[in-house]
Amino acid sequence: MNQIPVAILGATGSVGQRFVSLLERHPWFNVVALAASDRSAGQNYARATRWVLDTPMPEYARDMVIVPASPDAVRAKIVFSALHTEVANELEPAFAKAGAAVCSNASSYRREEDVPLLLPEINAEHIQLIERQRRNKGWSGCIVTNPNCTSTGLTIALKALDNEFGVKKVFATSLQALSGAGYPGVSSLDIMDNVIPNVGNGGEEEKVEWEPRKMLGKFSGGKIELADIQFSVHTNRVAVIDAHTVCASVQLDKSVEPDIAIQALRAYAAPLSARELPSSPRPVIEVRDEADRPQPRLDRMAGKGMTTVIGRVRRDPILDLKFVVLSHNTIRGAAGASIYNAELLVAENLL
Amino acid sequence: MNQIPVAILGATGSVGQRFVSLLERHPWFNVVALAASDRSAGQNYARATRWVLDTPMPEYARDMVIVPASPDAVRAKIVFSALHTEVANELEPAFAKAGAAVCSNASSYRREEDVPLLLPEINAEHIQLIERQRRNKGWSGCIVTNPNCTSTGLTIALKALDNEFGVKKVFATSLQALSGAGYPGVSSLDIMDNVIPNVGNGGEEEKVEWEPRKMLGKFSGGKIELADIQFSVHTNRVAVIDAHTVCASVQLDKSVEPDIAIQALRAYAAPLSARELPSSPRPVIEVRDEADRPQPRLDRMAGKGMTTVIGRVRRDPILDLKFVVLSHNTIRGAAGASIYNAELLVAENLL
Amino acid sequence: MNQIPVAILGATGSVGQRFVSLLERHPWFNVVALAASDRSAGQNYARATRWVLDTPMPEYARDMVIVPASPDAVRAKIVFSALHTEVANELEPAFAKAGAAVCSNASSYRREEDVPLLLPEINAEHIQLIERQRRNKGWSGCIVTNPNCTSTGLTIALKALDNEFGVKKVFATSLQALSGAGYPGVSSLDIMDNVIPNVGNGGEEEKVEWEPRKMLGKFSGGKIELADIQFSVHTNRVAVIDAHTVCASVQLDKSVEPDIAIQALRAYAAPLSARELPSSPRPVIEVRDEADRPQPRLDRMAGKGMTTVIGRVRRDPILDLKFVVLSHNTIRGAAGASIYNAELLVAENLL
Amino acid sequence: MNQIPVAILGATGSVGQRFVSLLERHPWFNVVALAASDRSAGQNYARATRWVLDTPMPEYARDMVIVPASPDAVRAKIVFSALHTEVANELEPAFAKAGAAVCSNASSYRREEDVPLLLPEINAEHIQLIERQRRNKGWSGCIVTNPNCTSTGLTIALKALDNEFGVKKVFATSLQALSGAGYPGVSSLDIMDNVIPNVGNGGEEEKVEWEPRKMLGKFSGGKIELADIQFSVHTNRVAVIDAHTVCASVQLDKSVEPDIAIQALRAYAAPLSARELPSSPRPVIEVRDEADRPQPRLDRMAGKGMTTVIGRVRRDPILDLKFVVLSHNTIRGAAGASIYNAELLVAENLL
Repeated sequence: MNQIPVAILGATGSVGQRFVSLLERHPWFNVVALAASDRSAGQNYARATRWVLDTPMPEYARDMVIVPASPDAVRAKIVFSALHTEVANELEPAFAKAGAAVCSNASSYRREEDVPLLLPEINAEHIQLIERQRRNKGWSGCIVTNPNCTSTGLTIALKALDNEFGVKKVFATSLQALSGAGYPGVSSLDIMDNVIPNVGNGGEEEKVEWEPRKMLGKFSGGKIELADIQFSVHTNRVAVIDAHTVCASVQLDKSVEPDIAIQALRAYAAPLSARELPSSPRPVIEVRDEADRPQPRLDRMAGKGMTTVIGRVRRDPILDLKFVVLSHNTIRGAAGASIYNAELLVAENLL
Repeated sequence: MNQIPVAILGATGSVGQRFVSLLERHPWFNVVALAASDRSAGQNYARATRWVLDTPMPEYARDMVIVPASPDAVRAKIVFSALHTEVANELEPAFAKAGAAVCSNASSYRREEDVPLLLPEINAEHIQLIERQRRNKGWSGCIVTNPNCTSTGLTIALKALDNEFGVKKVFATSLQALSGAGYPGVSSLDIMDNVIPNVGNGGEEEKVEWEPRKMLGKFSGGKIELADIQFSVHTNRVAVIDAHTVCASVQLDKSVEPDIAIQALRAYAAPLSARELPSSPRPVIEVRDEADRPQPRLDRMAGKGMTTVIGRVRRDPILDLKFVVLSHNTIRGAAGASIYNAELLVAENLL
Repeated sequence: MNQIPVAILGATGSVGQRFVSLLERHPWFNVVALAASDRSAGQNYARATRWVLDTPMPEYARDMVIVPASPDAVRAKIVFSALHTEVANELEPAFAKAGAAVCSNASSYRREEDVPLLLPEINAEHIQLIERQRRNKGWSGCIVTNPNCTSTGLTIALKALDNEFGVKKVFATSLQALSGAGYPGVSSLDIMDNVIPNVGNGGEEEKVEWEPRKMLGKFSGGKIELADIQFSVHTNRVAVIDAHTVCASVQLDKSVEPDIAIQALRAYAAPLSARELPSSPRPVIEVRDEADRPQPRLDRMAGKGMTTVIGRVRRDPILDLKFVVLSHNTIRGAAGASIYNAELLVAENLL
Repeated sequence: MNQIPVAILGATGSVGQRFVSLLERHPWFNVVALAASDRSAGQNYARATRWVLDTPMPEYARDMVIVPASPDAVRAKIVFSALHTEVANELEPAFAKAGAAVCSNASSYRREEDVPLLLPEINAEHIQLIERQRRNKGWSGCIVTNPNCTSTGLTIALKALDNEFGVKKVFATSLQALSGAGYPGVSSLDIMDNVIPNVGNGGEEEKVEWEPRKMLGKFSGGKIELADIQFSVHTNRVAVIDAHTVCASVQLDKSVEPDIAIQALRAYAAPLSARELPSSPRPVIEVRDEADRPQPRLDRMAGKGMTTVIGRVRRDPILDLKFVVLSHNTIRGAAGASIYNAELLVAENLL
């Protein structure tokens, strides 16, 4: 058990901490290296890290000595990347070349044609792109990415609807948590008694308007055809610690009653290959009946933070359906996502 | 100066307090009566009121003895109503019958065909409905209403666009302040580190999908024809004290570039009759250029809380424009709204 | 296992919910009845309760039908009381008379001479008061109380110091969490961007100035002699969901260096009888070395919410020591406290 | 009118912004220069500044071009310093040497024997230290300092008590606002649902234990004798935007009843020379009768943010009195303080 050696790149940051926490007692993975910037390398993890999670730092990590984030210093079959985009741009290919399976939370390679953008419960088959990636690049390792935290829950909800009714257009407005901006991230003076009506200076909206199209796209002939769905997205930062809320209005191919849509959402199951992995969400989707749910504080830990929680499924006066989606941004939307991707790699014998 | 005697119904509640505050040193109006429920009547105002505004209770109000909210007890030409719907249902007509001009923040009569739903800077001419109202009801007084606080800023923004380009469809998602729920209103345990994805149990969304159509409707032949605009609205409560933020996507009759839309928004002026009143917003609309504005804490007091602040005007990938609207919910969206309406009544000699 | 039938009185409130949650899978106790006010009785628990904890409502409780809080309706060996004071005044003796061991979080009987006020890790021997209580009252059951949530952590810290150095005077200022006020409790408009410099209208301060004296008092000859310690307490409510922080300055019999005090705090162990119970805090006291700990969000779940976390132990310029104490107010300070007391009753064969 | 040319050093920071705001339309002072770090110099103020106050940036400042913070670049009779300590260490003497009256909010020179540490409403006479300062240093200008924001309100309260009853010992615990840490200052992830039980890593406590002794000290023979009062201070950061709350327990020379103390607090008047200046607090002290006041959000703007608000004056079970003090940390405790000091300099002909 937990015999596959794994490493975390960017281990001291807020997403890195979530990796450290989620990998404690993982049944398959054994953390053998915590890597961070040169500034931290050489220090032990407990000293170098300003821990911001509300669960204690796992014992296993406290005394590990941080190593530099380079393939020379990190010997692991799987490398989890919580690196910033600019750093990930350079380092992730270096690790893939050196033979590691890079499971990345960075946005650097999400749009590459031969890099899977993966949420196993909806598009597990996209992982086959790796074969083409390896041929193209001549790598023994690979890069697998998970989407932006705001794309995550929304795309899962859309997949369940798309399967049954076909999705055509999506208006989505997010209310995003502070942890998505990292640490120190958002100044308290900017968010107390306030809303910031833009996340990532527009970049976040662009991601959420594009990423679902790749994940909902068909994989055939070794390629992914982007789904023909139109998106319009507004993003907002609100005073919530964890979990993103998204209000969505959706146009379908065939109009359905809300209760039929709810049935489809509840009945949605992950592809077989992604259904029984250690991090598989149980259930994939939870639909709440209350008029005022989902709520970040109350629902973010559903399915250990891996379940997508949906509520207020109702008719949309212009399109077909309106609903609210909630997803834990640093578990399902970041560290948990990369780990789930890695589990799929293992299960599919793609290491 | 300030010789017109006015009264406030529901003076001890949070909107009532805003009336008390805004009417301090009003150039035309003199508060002669503060009315509240029988429970408070007979006490002096300072003692009966749990003051929640961050400006001190005005001196003039402190020692006024609260009277019952009945036409017998309240002698005033203008009566500002901060009553709850059920109470307003009964009391407002009684006051109108007794000869008072009721300027109401309640939702009770907003949908009546002969009751103006008024934002003077956009539909001042609707005030002429009063003549028909008086004929129909045989009242010497009248009822004039202002819209729901979430409808307010959105409708003002839409008016400026509708004038120039014609508005056809609107998707809107609100992030609403706590003061909109009154006092004690929202429990701290419900909103700390949280979002409530529904305001007023669905009722708020229905209001915002209907009220703008009346205000943007044409007034002719003594009637208002509802504007032919489709609305789809999501509401959310967030941890903000004052000011509602609305993210809107809009389809126009003629597609325009964002910079042309911004010009139209900036150039928008109130009808002449509503332009130079004591509470007229100066300017009606402020457009911010920054990528992350408007923000509740920074922008809510623009134009003394009466200006509608708009930002992030940009192309919508599905419709024509996306933008963000901010409006102070208890000033422009409640007490200030009713006062502005009353000023228009006075200026138009309709008392 | 979990064969002792227990009931929760006041099960729908916020402390009641914490009992429901903590008793899920308890090794000794089996919840057989959830009791609440007549208004809720007859409904099933999931429907009658507005759940406010961020962990989901336990499955076992969802379909239990709420019963009235009367000895007739509730058949259980142990009854956990999360009742309001006025209700507890009447009902708790009735249950004790009917043979139940009442483990109460209410303040009603804390000051009774023959009622133990108990924190097992510091004064487990006080439980012997029950024998006198039963003789006095002729009860087959009994009442055992736990202290106010703000007294809790402070008294545990003081006990460890008192044992070694003798405590003479204590200045304490609290920064208390919102959950201590129940639900709906504190209005969001009262606490956003604010502090309320008084909890319980002075009553809380009085409790914290008295309760530790009983718990730190000597038990001999069947009586408790109040400890001869002087207290001066300020209370404040702050915008924190769970966990009370207390800043304390303490005068000792013998002056000590902070590092000696820290050793004593770390070395502190519960009395043998209270050391290996299911809810025993492990450790009783955690001392943090960082300059800015303990912090509510980061430290409240230490020892599953049962550990008292102390930091910033330093010289006091007037007295001897200054330090900061943190304790989870609804776990160690309320529901967890009563459960720990009940476990001690069982272990001591006092049911 | 406003003919005295003044400059602001560190004008882009959060305290600098408060200076810019408070000096708009000042009756005596005319802002002729805004100085900041070399990084900002040359840009206009509106562009270089991330404005964080909830009142708009004054028009006069928007287009001013920022100059370097050096005596060569800044020609002004009075220079307000919002510099960080290390920078102030060097620059303030340079300005004083060049002939400017430096009114400083920095802590650099507060402890110098010949530098006044000034709150005009309590120790206006200490300004005479300047003569000695000028002799010692050979400066034509001077340095005058105001105390730390947490010392401010507390010292004013103590002065009123000391005059009448003599203060001997003070225990004080602060609950401090976020704006005291500047911008970006405290991360939202550090303070949401949290308390940080230490401000300035202990340095703040040391300041509050020393500064009041200088301000309450006797000035005679050209020297200040530190007051013989003992202080023990705890500091905490809480989720409040502006205004520091301090809970104090005080031992007096002669024990008094709370109502007598309240009379003394209410009757307290500033020295004549400091009573009618433009920024004089009106009143110096406000005592609230309510059981739950002062509160930051409701009371911080008393006397335009210059009044010290006190409440809950009651017996202390160990010493004599307990009470709560509130003071606006960036107005009375920072920018407003330096401006008030400058006004005293002008009134005393000490420029």
